[in-house]
Amino acid sequence: MDAYLSGAATTRFGRRSESLAALAREAGEAALAAAGVDRPDHVLVSCQFPGELGDAENVAVLVADTLGLLPVPAARVEAAPASGSAAVALARALVRSGEARDVLVLGVERMTHRPSAEIASVLARMTPPSERALGLTMPALTALMARRWMHATGASREDLALAPVKAHRHAVGNPHAQFRKPVTVADVLASPPVADPLRVLDCAPVTDGAAAVVVSHRGPVRIAGVGQATDTYAYTDRRGEPSLVGFPATRVAAHKAFSEARKMRRDVDVVEHHDAFSVLEFANVADLGLLDDPLARLEDGTTSLGGALPTNVGGGLKARGHPVGATGLAQAVELFAQLTRNAGARQVDGAKVALAHNIGGFGSNVFVTLYEAVA
Amino acid sequence: MDAYLSGAATTRFGRRSESLAALAREAGEAALAAAGVDRPDHVLVSCQFPGELGDAENVAVLVADTLGLLPVPAARVEAAPASGSAAVALARALVRSGEARDVLVLGVERMTHRPSAEIASVLARMTPPSERALGLTMPALTALMARRWMHATGASREDLALAPVKAHRHAVGNPHAQFRKPVTVADVLASPPVADPLRVLDCAPVTDGAAAVVVSHRGPVRIAGVGQATDTYAYTDRRGEPSLVGFPATRVAAHKAFSEARKMRRDVDVVEHHDAFSVLEFANVADLGLLDDPLARLEDGTTSLGGALPTNVGGGLKARGHPVGATGLAQAVELFAQLTRNAGARQVDGAKVALAHNIGGFGSNVFVTLYEAVA
Repeated sequence: MDAYLSGAATTRFGRRSESLAALAREAGEAALAAAGVDRPDHVLVSCQFPGELGDAENVAVLVADTLGLLPVPAARVEAAPASGSAAVALARALVRSGEARDVLVLGVERMTHRPSAEIASVLARMTPPSERALGLTMPALTALMARRWMHATGASREDLALAPVKAHRHAVGNPHAQFRKPVTVADVLASPPVADPLRVLDCAPVTDGAAAVVVSHRGPVRIAGVGQATDTYAYTDRRGEPSLVGFPATRVAAHKAFSEARKMRRDVDVVEHHDAFSVLEFANVADLGLLDDPLARLEDGTTSLGGALPTNVGGGLKARGHPVGATGLAQAVELFAQLTRNAGARQVDGAKVALAHNIGGFGSNVFVTLYEAVA
Repeated sequence: MDAYLSGAATTRFGRRSESLAALAREAGEAALAAAGVDRPDHVLVSCQFPGELGDAENVAVLVADTLGLLPVPAARVEAAPASGSAAVALARALVRSGEARDVLVLGVERMTHRPSAEIASVLARMTPPSERALGLTMPALTALMARRWMHATGASREDLALAPVKAHRHAVGNPHAQFRKPVTVADVLASPPVADPLRVLDCAPVTDGAAAVVVSHRGPVRIAGVGQATDTYAYTDRRGEPSLVGFPATRVAAHKAFSEARKMRRDVDVVEHHDAFSVLEFANVADLGLLDDPLARLEDGTTSLGGALPTNVGGGLKARGHPVGATGLAQAVELFAQLTRNAGARQVDGAKVALAHNIGGFGSNVFVTLYEAVA
C-alpha cells in the first residue's frame, strides 16, 4: 500500500510572539482543512526542544489537545533537526500498516524568545562532550568543512557567500519566509564572524514557526521513497570519508530513496535540501548525486528558480528560517505546493518529482524523501 | 500481518554509575542476542530527557552508534513516561507495513546523577504553567487523587500503604529491581512527606536503567492489540469524569486494545500497570476494568504473585524503579519473560495473555498493550 500527502500548511516563519500551542494550532488546522480531514487517526509531533526551549514536556498531548483532537493517539518523534522527516517516515508506516488512514504530522519550534547563548548551549548537546570540549559545536564543525571545501575546489570565500545570496533572493518570493530581503556578497562578508570562515549570514537563523502535512491513504502527492542513514555520533569517529567535504549518510540515504522509488536522479524536478550553513548548499547537492559542480551550477542559474534543477526555492533553512522541529515539515509543505501547482510565484514549471533532504546532527542522521505528483 | 516480540532484556535498575550509552549498550546487545538478530532494520529509542538530564541530544544516533549498527535508520519516540509503549506501537507499524522485519526498541534514562530539585523541575514541565503556578505538579495532582479515592472508597491512609508494601514484596524476587527489600505499612507512614497524604514510599523512585525488546515479523510473543488515548494537557480542563479517581484515557485505551485483540478481560493472566504512585495501584486496575474492588483484591492476594490476577510481579514502577524512558520497555521485558516461561521465581503459572498499561503525563497519554504467547 502507498501513502500520500493529502494536505499541507505552514505558519509564517520568523520571530513570533504566539505560544508554541498557538503556532501548532495555526499550521495544524490549516493542514487538516487543506486535506479535507476532520479527525486524523493519529498525530505525530516533531519538536526538538519542547522542554528545554518550549517549557512544555509531553508536547504531543499539548498539540492534540490544542487542536481539539482528543482522544487521538499522539506521540512525538525526534531525530534532531531531521525530526520532521522522521515523523513523516513513521506516519507513512502507520498508513501502510493499515493502522491509520490519515496522520497529522506537525512540526513546531519556538526559539527566538530565549537568549542566544542558551540556544547555542542546547544545540551544542548534539555533539558529544569530548568534541564540545574542543569547541567542536555545529558551527565550528561546519567551518572546518567550509575550509576543506574551499581548499578542495579552489573556491573563494566570496564563492561561499553566493549560497546565502541565492537563498535570500529566493525567499523574497515566499510570504512565509523569515528574511524577505536580498543580501549581497558584501553583506555576507561584512556580517559578524561566527566560526571562521563562517559569518552570521552563512548560518541559518534562530526561528519560530510550525508546519504540518497530512499523510494519508490517498492524496495528490505520493511518498515515493524514503531513505535514511545514520553516521557516527562523534565526527572524530567518522571513517571512510576521504574528502571531509560531504556527509556519507546523505549518499546512503539518497541511494535507498532512489532505489525504493525506482527513480533516477534526472527524474527530480525540484529539491529542498538542508542548507543550514553556506557550504551545505554545495556539499548536499554533490552528496545527493544531483550535480557534479554545484558552485558552477549555482553561478549559471541551474539551481535557481527558472533553472533546470531549482533548489530551496522558498529560501531554504537559510532564509525561510530554521525552527528545528518544523524544518522537515516546511520542506514537505513547499514540495506539496510545488507538486500540486500551488506555489504561486515560486512555482517550478512542470514539477512532477521532488526531493527533500533533511539532516539531524552533523551529518549523523539523514533522510532523503522522494515525492511524486499523482497524475 | 502481525508483529511479535522476538527478544527482550533489561539492565539492573537503580543507581548506576555507567553512562547513558553504556546502559543502552547493555540492554540493546542482550535483547538482540535473545532475539537472534544481528542487524535490526530500524532502531527506535525511548528516552524522555536525553538533553535535560542525559546531556545527549540526538540520542537515537548515540544509541545506534554505540551498538555498532550504523547506518541503521534510527529515531527517538517520546510520549512522556509512556514513551516506551509509544515506541513499541510505532515499531509494530514498521513491521506491519513491511518496511522492517526486526526493530530494536530501546528505552533508557539516566537520572540519579542529577539533583532532586532539578529532576522535579524537569518533570514539572509535563503540566502547563497555569497548573504549575498552583503547585499542581505530578505528586500534588496524585495526592489530590489519593484523597479523593480514600473519600470515595472509605479506605484509610494505611490501606493506601498496602500498595508499596506489595510492590516491594514482589521486587525481592526480581534481580533487576532497584529495591529488593520489603517495607511495612509503618515504614511507608514514617517516610518523609511529599504531598499530603503521599509520602516518599508512595512514590516511584528516581532511577537509572535501560530495557529493550526486538519487535519482529515473527517471535514467541504476539502483539495482540494496542490501544492508545490522549486526554487534556491541563488536568483542570478535564471534563466528564465524575469521580476524579481514575483516568478516562485508560478506559478508552483498554477498550481499543481489547477490541483489536478480540480478547476479554478474563483472558488476561498477568498485568504490568503504571503504579507511579500508591493510589494508582488501585485506580489503574479499576480503570482497566480488570477487578471491581482492587483494595479487597490486594488484601486477599488476588493481585499478588500466586493469586488469580497478579499485577506488577517484578515490583512495578514503585520497586523495580522508574527510569522514565525505559519504563514502558521494562514492562514489555517482564511480560515477554512471563509469556516465554522465563520469569524464574516470579513466573505466573500458565500465563498466556498479558497486559501492559503505561501512562504519560497525568493520565493524558495512555497506552494499553496486549501480548499473547504463540502456541
